[in-house]
Amino acid sequence: MHTCKGFAGAAVAAGIKKAGRPDLGLIYSRVPATVAGVFTTNKVQAAPVQLDRQRVKAGTARAIIVNAGNANCCTGKQGLEDAATMAGCVARDLGIDPAQVLVASTGVIGQFLPMDRIKGAVCDLVRGLTPEGLDDVARAMMTTDTFAKLSVRQPGVNGTAFTVLGMAKGAGMIRPDMATMLCFVVSDAAIAPEVLHQVLTRATDASFNRITIDGDTSTNDTILVLANGRSGVNVDAGPGLEAFDKALHEVLMDLARQVVKDGEGATKLVEVKVRGAGSDAEATLVAQAVANSSLVKTAFFGQDANWGRILAAAGRSGADFDPAAVDLFFNDVRLVEAGTWCGPDAETRATAVLHQPEFSVTVDLRAGTGTAEVLTCDFSLDYVKINADYRS
Amino acid sequence: MHTCKGFAGAAVAAGIKKAGRPDLGLIYSRVPATVAGVFTTNKVQAAPVQLDRQRVKAGTARAIIVNAGNANCCTGKQGLEDAATMAGCVARDLGIDPAQVLVASTGVIGQFLPMDRIKGAVCDLVRGLTPEGLDDVARAMMTTDTFAKLSVRQPGVNGTAFTVLGMAKGAGMIRPDMATMLCFVVSDAAIAPEVLHQVLTRATDASFNRITIDGDTSTNDTILVLANGRSGVNVDAGPGLEAFDKALHEVLMDLARQVVKDGEGATKLVEVKVRGAGSDAEATLVAQAVANSSLVKTAFFGQDANWGRILAAAGRSGADFDPAAVDLFFNDVRLVEAGTWCGPDAETRATAVLHQPEFSVTVDLRAGTGTAEVLTCDFSLDYVKINADYRS
Repeated sequence: MHTCKGFAGAAVAAGIKKAGRPDLGLIYSRVPATVAGVFTTNKVQAAPVQLDRQRVKAGTARAIIVNAGNANCCTGKQGLEDAATMAGCVARDLGIDPAQVLVASTGVIGQFLPMDRIKGAVCDLVRGLTPEGLDDVARAMMTTDTFAKLSVRQPGVNGTAFTVLGMAKGAGMIRPDMATMLCFVVSDAAIAPEVLHQVLTRATDASFNRITIDGDTSTNDTILVLANGRSGVNVDAGPGLEAFDKALHEVLMDLARQVVKDGEGATKLVEVKVRGAGSDAEATLVAQAVANSSLVKTAFFGQDANWGRILAAAGRSGADFDPAAVDLFFNDVRLVEAGTWCGPDAETRATAVLHQPEFSVTVDLRAGTGTAEVLTCDFSLDYVKINADYRS
Repeated sequence: MHTCKGFAGAAVAAGIKKAGRPDLGLIYSRVPATVAGVFTTNKVQAAPVQLDRQRVKAGTARAIIVNAGNANCCTGKQGLEDAATMAGCVARDLGIDPAQVLVASTGVIGQFLPMDRIKGAVCDLVRGLTPEGLDDVARAMMTTDTFAKLSVRQPGVNGTAFTVLGMAKGAGMIRPDMATMLCFVVSDAAIAPEVLHQVLTRATDASFNRITIDGDTSTNDTILVLANGRSGVNVDAGPGLEAFDKALHEVLMDLARQVVKDGEGATKLVEVKVRGAGSDAEATLVAQAVANSSLVKTAFFGQDANWGRILAAAGRSGADFDPAAVDLFFNDVRLVEAGTWCGPDAETRATAVLHQPEFSVTVDLRAGTGTAEVLTCDFSLDYVKINADYRS
């Protein structure tokens, strides 16, 4: 059970997903909160993303309503009206300004929201708000996720504690280029909007922008942070800012790891580390190419230390390096030295690493000082099963 | 049974692949032939690619030795020596200059070739050369391919016929950026090296550079064309050049289609057509993003007309367009008009299209006149099975 001063949450089953599971959630701050958001860079942007992008500019917000089962994307003017209506219903029942309500949706693209069911459910949702209800929101926004993703930090500044509580949903269509599917963070710290935006952007770059499940950037990627100041701790500068920055980084990184660990069909969590590149940008090219390669990811699933596929992916990444100089490690086992295989003993030890549920791959290009890290997962039979059947 | 004047072929089982299947092939021209080649753009290049890249500069060649089961890639100096030794053995037994022998390898990356077995098999290989043996080479270079890929055209010029006979192997690690895994073409036309190179480059761009199976560019991609002039037809210019150019384009396009159709685990052959883009380059970005999307390809496998995933892939491609203007078709069924769904009737007809083994997806961005086409396949359970178990 996670709580954060001045925030309440609730979830109900509105009949958007099948089978009566909770699919509509609400996060509410009892006082106006500072807000910041980062959103998908996909040209195709869901209606709630378009709405929130405008509304966060105000710098404050009170509530986030989120549904799973339908992304409200590629739904034209009707979709935008529906998103605004969702926010409007919440505002009416809470007695607050509709412009202070943000909206998020996740699920199938291209279908209209069942607005009658949503309108009918908002009253119950508002009535159900409790300080202990935030966990329920994390569960309500799950689609093919197998567990709810929550993370909390409670640092202290000058003897007073504040809370940073985050939740996320992931699973598929994950190669964030700005944010992942949906992530909401609430905090009772006091912070100015421009400071919050800066901290959030840095933390997102260091966490969600470094994970991939299938290389597909979603149309609904959204991170929203609400900070309502109820802890009495101001974190605009000094030790407060340091503590808040550290807590937000840790919460987002923890959630990002959970998202990859729960990637559709995933059985392995793999950290792809690149070092010795000509620049950090070239290191990122290599790390992304390796982390997104279907051949590399199916080999992870097969627990096969198939280093040739990793070098081949690096080779097509666009980065400049000499293949005859490259070293490659699984955890601390060196399997490739100066571009060639280290032999059967190293192979045996590397294969043992691949049998672990979490491990790292390090590619040392020995061409410079650039580094990058990307978290990825394997590519399993269940990924194909889940995505072949998704709409049916 | 395919033949081409002045060419012979042979294949033997040298024990490189498991289970006694043919794995070593030889193509031989009884007279020096004009040669041209295009090779992988991957920074990691197999030893035979490095060797051939140098040797084709001479403009003539006599033979190609090819093995499956081992890519001779990431094998350092030993690999380069092994490739040269393979060519040397062939040259010795044929009594020709070693520099006139080209080498190609396909299979697992990072292992040394079993040179004793190869050296022991070359004598039988040379002794087995027959004009009817070219089909055997196409079979010997198969890895996870399920059928041999051959294509032939026999145009006439001024009453005299000549032959363009091509063979290819594909299956996985296919997203050519210059050529696909291996493709050899023999012709009895007479042509100058520089003309052959030009024709080959254009034909490759129009065929193998427009297919994808899994987005992974191979380290061994090689296309080699040998033209020995034995038909007596010169195709350096005029109607001869036109006929040769057309025949080579058709042969490469036919082989490229066969490669995608036989993609690892593939059950669907899908033509992704993009029109109305701001430029041909932007159309290509969209076509490649759609054709390589794991989510789009698993939906093809599930026979699901999941147009939202197609628009989402287009949206992250980097191309500029207005999502609210886009039309989308499966064959001639329009499922999306101006960015939104055309309703249940269109959905039913689109789903029927998805149940066919071959179909097209057309994305009309309505932003300009740029077009592109890419051939792809679906992403099936068998792709994962094949690639999880590949080295074991």
